[in-house]
Amino acid sequence: MRATRFFISTQKEAPSDAEIVSHQLMMRAGMIKRLGSGIYTYMPIGLRVIRKVEAIIREEMNKAGAIELLMPLVQPAELWQETGRWDKMGPELMRVKDRHGREYAIQPTSEEVITDVVRGEIKSYRQLPLNFYHIQTKFRDERRPRFGLMRGREFTMKDAYSFDRDLAGMQASYKVMFDAYSAIFTRFGLRFRAVAADNGAIGGTGSHEFHVIASTGEDALVYCPTSDFAANMEAAEAMPLAAARAPAGAALAKTATPGTTKCEQVAALLGLELSRTVKTIALTVEKEVDGKQVKENWMLLLRGDHELNEVKVAKVPGLATHRFATEAEILECYGTVPGYLGPIGTRAPVTVVADRTVANMADFVCGANDKDFHYTGANWGRDIAEPLVADLRNVVEGDASPDGKGVLAIERGIEVGHVFQLGTAYSAAMKATFLDENGKPAPLQMGCYGIGVTRILGAAIEQNFDDKGIIWPGAIAPFEVVLCPMNYDKIEMVRAETERMYGALQAAGVDVIVDDRGLRPGAMFADWELIGVPHRVVIGERGLKEGNLEYQGRRDTEATAVTPAAIVEFLQGKLSS
Amino acid sequence: MRATRFFISTQKEAPSDAEIVSHQLMMRAGMIKRLGSGIYTYMPIGLRVIRKVEAIIREEMNKAGAIELLMPLVQPAELWQETGRWDKMGPELMRVKDRHGREYAIQPTSEEVITDVVRGEIKSYRQLPLNFYHIQTKFRDERRPRFGLMRGREFTMKDAYSFDRDLAGMQASYKVMFDAYSAIFTRFGLRFRAVAADNGAIGGTGSHEFHVIASTGEDALVYCPTSDFAANMEAAEAMPLAAARAPAGAALAKTATPGTTKCEQVAALLGLELSRTVKTIALTVEKEVDGKQVKENWMLLLRGDHELNEVKVAKVPGLATHRFATEAEILECYGTVPGYLGPIGTRAPVTVVADRTVANMADFVCGANDKDFHYTGANWGRDIAEPLVADLRNVVEGDASPDGKGVLAIERGIEVGHVFQLGTAYSAAMKATFLDENGKPAPLQMGCYGIGVTRILGAAIEQNFDDKGIIWPGAIAPFEVVLCPMNYDKIEMVRAETERMYGALQAAGVDVIVDDRGLRPGAMFADWELIGVPHRVVIGERGLKEGNLEYQGRRDTEATAVTPAAIVEFLQGKLSS
Repeated sequence: MRATRFFISTQKEAPSDAEIVSHQLMMRAGMIKRLGSGIYTYMPIGLRVIRKVEAIIREEMNKAGAIELLMPLVQPAELWQETGRWDKMGPELMRVKDRHGREYAIQPTSEEVITDVVRGEIKSYRQLPLNFYHIQTKFRDERRPRFGLMRGREFTMKDAYSFDRDLAGMQASYKVMFDAYSAIFTRFGLRFRAVAADNGAIGGTGSHEFHVIASTGEDALVYCPTSDFAANMEAAEAMPLAAARAPAGAALAKTATPGTTKCEQVAALLGLELSRTVKTIALTVEKEVDGKQVKENWMLLLRGDHELNEVKVAKVPGLATHRFATEAEILECYGTVPGYLGPIGTRAPVTVVADRTVANMADFVCGANDKDFHYTGANWGRDIAEPLVADLRNVVEGDASPDGKGVLAIERGIEVGHVFQLGTAYSAAMKATFLDENGKPAPLQMGCYGIGVTRILGAAIEQNFDDKGIIWPGAIAPFEVVLCPMNYDKIEMVRAETERMYGALQAAGVDVIVDDRGLRPGAMFADWELIGVPHRVVIGERGLKEGNLEYQGRRDTEATAVTPAAIVEFLQGKLSS
Repeated sequence: MRATRFFISTQKEAPSDAEIVSHQLMMRAGMIKRLGSGIYTYMPIGLRVIRKVEAIIREEMNKAGAIELLMPLVQPAELWQETGRWDKMGPELMRVKDRHGREYAIQPTSEEVITDVVRGEIKSYRQLPLNFYHIQTKFRDERRPRFGLMRGREFTMKDAYSFDRDLAGMQASYKVMFDAYSAIFTRFGLRFRAVAADNGAIGGTGSHEFHVIASTGEDALVYCPTSDFAANMEAAEAMPLAAARAPAGAALAKTATPGTTKCEQVAALLGLELSRTVKTIALTVEKEVDGKQVKENWMLLLRGDHELNEVKVAKVPGLATHRFATEAEILECYGTVPGYLGPIGTRAPVTVVADRTVANMADFVCGANDKDFHYTGANWGRDIAEPLVADLRNVVEGDASPDGKGVLAIERGIEVGHVFQLGTAYSAAMKATFLDENGKPAPLQMGCYGIGVTRILGAAIEQNFDDKGIIWPGAIAPFEVVLCPMNYDKIEMVRAETERMYGALQAAGVDVIVDDRGLRPGAMFADWELIGVPHRVVIGERGLKEGNLEYQGRRDTEATAVTPAAIVEFLQGKLSS
């Protein structure tokens, strides 16, 4: 490519609505242009990166035996009604009516359509397994689109769907996709981590997220450096910090703690470590019993320095549909205000659920259900009935790994892929069956597998940038090499050597752009550093007379002299490393 | 590709709603699957053809200096309001509201968005010319979607937009695109014709349509075999059939023609040729004059054997907003009923417009404005005042070419591309200006250029099929070559030779599929003839023992014996021819 035949439009400043570095750099590099809230035109440089990302995904999906098709954007409401998602999905599902008043969804994913395709095509177990995928535009009407391509409304996604005859087959298909995803993210040249994920409301039997590691990531990834344990924060099991409970050593004492509604304040006032305190979270569960609406009081107990994990709470039997208690409910149940709640002496009956760590504590501090008072020296069995015990908290660095093979570390990530064992959730709802070996109809076992194509761009930049701009990994860079001739228009020697190299690199299959715009060096270099092309060769008259070109990798602090005769091989070496 | 790793699902019968052969064959070959009215999933075989079509378009667009980007599907109403198209476009523009009630169009084309992109990026004439294109999903909410991919609602289009500083630049950009389109359709291997087109309501200064020639085409293409004149029926100028008017030879006579309301009936009754008759078409024009609504009576005169061309009528000065007269208006103006109207002796004043051919007729027959009577021997100047003269009719085969270089022929075509000189229609409405050499703002001169990507599939099939199925041109075939081994699973010799050929063809860059499904020959051959793969090689035990493979081109009536040693070179010869 020649820069004069391409469209390059860089900016010194990012627009004020660009809050994160990837959004700022993509706008400044001219990769994207905002059309509306969460809707972007992919400008020529941005589109080149997208196409490279798509090509790698496509190759690895094909290699893994998945078959590409293309499902429509505009999908009839009737299919979405079959699975109930037409009603279940909120306003993030973009809905549209045609001229005849018929309703359609603009697809955010395609489970319904692929299940409809397959139920029309698959008759027998002999046709299985099958895995279909497409790379398609998606729309999700986010309430608050932001962060450029990270949380846009219109975006590109690769979604694949596997169909198997039984659970073992589905798990095998899942494994193939898991491995394909690992291959894809490896080829992107990004540091990534696959973590076990919670299955969430969608149901199913297993799921993993693929995250690009970046300190700016929204998600916390939990892993054990000495084993292969890895999970996201929702799914990471927290072990009790003490293996067994110590015997009670102190007497229960009601202690004045005026104005201290937080564990940190109580610990400071009493001169104790925060890890000696226990905080109380009051919940209400409303349900129908024998046709009557009843309210239950529940209490969660967490160590003062721990954080509640709401996904785990929802899994406690009885708490699937809980909510936090209102101040009025708290007053009625505990006889006091928030900040002084505890398990000893509540006004109304409360079901107590202690986090595993709290269940093994002795001589702890908790609220006394009396304003400005806490108990010290509280002990299970003696002062309070034994509680229900559950894993309620987020893990923290240094916790024991649930596999018993080390301690946990935490890093930040950006979710860019998700593989999911769906089981028969969709096939049962849509009556997508096949005839098994005995000629009996059975529902298809499904898996679904997504990669956020356009999100990859943002995640790659969040992981790879400096104060000059983007630093693309070679495999997904808009160009692999940029040739920067000095006075291309004026000095024949420079022009001739640039053209020779350009031809030789193209012949070698290198994706190269020559900057023939005739800019001054400073402006030219700034453009390519901002755009993030990984390899740069400067062709200058003085250097040529000395028999040298100047090579500089995007992360290099200094240039390297390379002879014109050696430059193609030199660059091929850099590109393959 | 191996058939067992691909998805092949052919059908004996097409669904009853498939009215035309391309729709029937695409459904039977398993290329597309209907999701809703005018909305199709592109199944794996169909998608392969689409990707090949897109790749050829992309290569030629890039070669022509156009730059690829990707504009969003969901486009804010505000931009469409700037050009007035939000209101002008009817229900075929699919409109959607987001969760905040903001309105958007699902794009049918992208003039507004590209003009918005460019007005934000282009400051100076130095940045021009520019040509941006994208290949993107489009939606048009057709009232009556039909014919499969020919008139779908969701479809894929390549649309390009050129921006120039002046008319000459725009015309040069237009020429480059015209030539690129010719290269694209040539590479597809389709017989096509570019014809001059009417500019229609969109305005602008020039336009051509590209048609795939097919006897089933909806459009009539007019061309001169001995010159380069070519136009569609709307734009093809009709010359007068006689160069000059003959002198009057007969007396005007009012003749009883009871019950003959059509020219054919009158000619038969009077024993005259149909070409001696003239038919009258009564029009009404309503307009405001000095704040008052007035009605004008107009009459069009056409030779009895000619067809009215309504696009030409609308171009007659004064007739831009005409309509056909109602029966009541006819009775009031002519004093008689339709079937007996004519230019002699109307009850009210009528502006008479004669087609060029009618204006040069003598001794003709026309209605007498009296039920059951016609005039014979009617003559201009003597019996009727000289009329206004205009080109009002469709040309017919054998008409003189407007360039004077031969006579016209007509063939049928399917429109698959359109190039259009837009001028400043969009840039002026959207204030997309640049600073010219004198530092003065001037509106950008635009052109737009479309290719119906998915429609190409239908058109190619309408041009290339037989009673067995589709016959793809090599360049856009889903596979170039199919290997059909007989008893692949059972006979090692067959399996080994098939694998050797498969490897050799892949290494030679041939797009080959091996049918390893183990089907019987009849079913296997029928599948590939239906799918339309252009080259087939049968590998059988008996042939191999005799040192032969059987090659058969999709259009060949018999197979050709080729030795295993020669087959790769033989196929390469076929593919490059």
